[in-house]
Amino acid sequence: MKETLLKGQIKINAIWIAEGKRSARAKEILQIAEDRGIPVEFKKGALLDRYLPRIAHQGIMALAEKFTYIDFNTLIDMSLDASEQSLLLAADHITDEGNLGALIRTAAFFRSHGLILPKDRSAKVTEKVRKRSAGSYVHLPVSRVVNLGRALDVLDRKGFWIIGAAGEAAETIYRFDWKRPLVLVVGSEERGLSRSVRSRCHELVSIPTYGQVESLNVSVACGIILSEIVRQRKVSS
Amino acid sequence: MKETLLKGQIKINAIWIAEGKRSARAKEILQIAEDRGIPVEFKKGALLDRYLPRIAHQGIMALAEKFTYIDFNTLIDMSLDASEQSLLLAADHITDEGNLGALIRTAAFFRSHGLILPKDRSAKVTEKVRKRSAGSYVHLPVSRVVNLGRALDVLDRKGFWIIGAAGEAAETIYRFDWKRPLVLVVGSEERGLSRSVRSRCHELVSIPTYGQVESLNVSVACGIILSEIVRQRKVSS
Repeated sequence: MKETLLKGQIKINAIWIAEGKRSARAKEILQIAEDRGIPVEFKKGALLDRYLPRIAHQGIMALAEKFTYIDFNTLIDMSLDASEQSLLLAADHITDEGNLGALIRTAAFFRSHGLILPKDRSAKVTEKVRKRSAGSYVHLPVSRVVNLGRALDVLDRKGFWIIGAAGEAAETIYRFDWKRPLVLVVGSEERGLSRSVRSRCHELVSIPTYGQVESLNVSVACGIILSEIVRQRKVSS
Repeated sequence: MKETLLKGQIKINAIWIAEGKRSARAKEILQIAEDRGIPVEFKKGALLDRYLPRIAHQGIMALAEKFTYIDFNTLIDMSLDASEQSLLLAADHITDEGNLGALIRTAAFFRSHGLILPKDRSAKVTEKVRKRSAGSYVHLPVSRVVNLGRALDVLDRKGFWIIGAAGEAAETIYRFDWKRPLVLVVGSEERGLSRSVRSRCHELVSIPTYGQVESLNVSVACGIILSEIVRQRKVSS
């Protein structure tokens, strides 16, 4: 780790250090990170254990340029263990990299516990996506699943509400009660939610339209819904 | 107008016809528009008078490919005359065309009465901006002013509240009472609000951050604030 940092051959985007870690090694890494302008964040040790299962990480983790997806079951556990009510996001076949990057930035801002992407017909977390996320991807665990419908079945069994964003839904984001563990599913701008995803939603919600423009960019729509979730959970409680 | 439509040399993006207009000419135009796939919208006659002052428009107006800005005082009057409480948007030196296009789409979705841009150090409503707005620019009057600070002074005298979006503001968008005639001012992502604009704001408001990501894309931030304005005005009334 120290050598990787000093050599600088692999670009390191951030360093996570377990809270309370005060080893000489940690102090050395902190100093090098500061010299090189690499952001350092202090995280719960258990979080590092999850990102690095069965690895003797000594409480220090570097997030390298190459993106690491997180295991789906690990993501579920992290969200269930979080101090706030569970809040995951699933993107049903968003293929535009700019949109995915903007979505990641927005989800990270509102502290979603993670993002679920299908492996096929979806943009991956490429360098362009990470750039468009304005660096915020380091704060949002992303998991890839073979079949999004079946992943939602797993979440359902774990007690998550499956809530889909759909422009034509009668229930609005303002009336819906967001104080429950949930995964918010958003679709692509062109096609919306796929049938297999839609059939698994416990509820569909919409942002009411008052003008003649009927749709929003997916990251804007997602930001509006996440804002309403956070408002209801934190502000009106 | 009929000739322009038939020749097809100038690209027409939309046609506005005054409500209640039933002339033979209007019917003819409607038919041609349908054949050519040009959207037709029915608007109040007074609105056409304002876009085309001192012009005998006969209740029909074509929105051509070349973008037409609206006079600033006309925009103010339109917002004051609207059936809902006044809601204007001002963008303080947004230079990125993609961001401006996304902002226009979001503002049009929430039926803002119009957008005010400074003439200097701001993106113009170029073809790229109009494309990024997904065609929604036809629903949002845009006015350009020489000096945004002085334009805000005029709005102040006309009874508008000047509300600035600023990440560090103590007042949050959820607590602030939006039920008043207002102009929302958003800054560029890099620099935020300029000093001359900031000094004119009656109130600064922020979207609370709960995570480690401190900023949002300007169109996402704007969508979240406009959503909260509409929620308070329509849903909680």
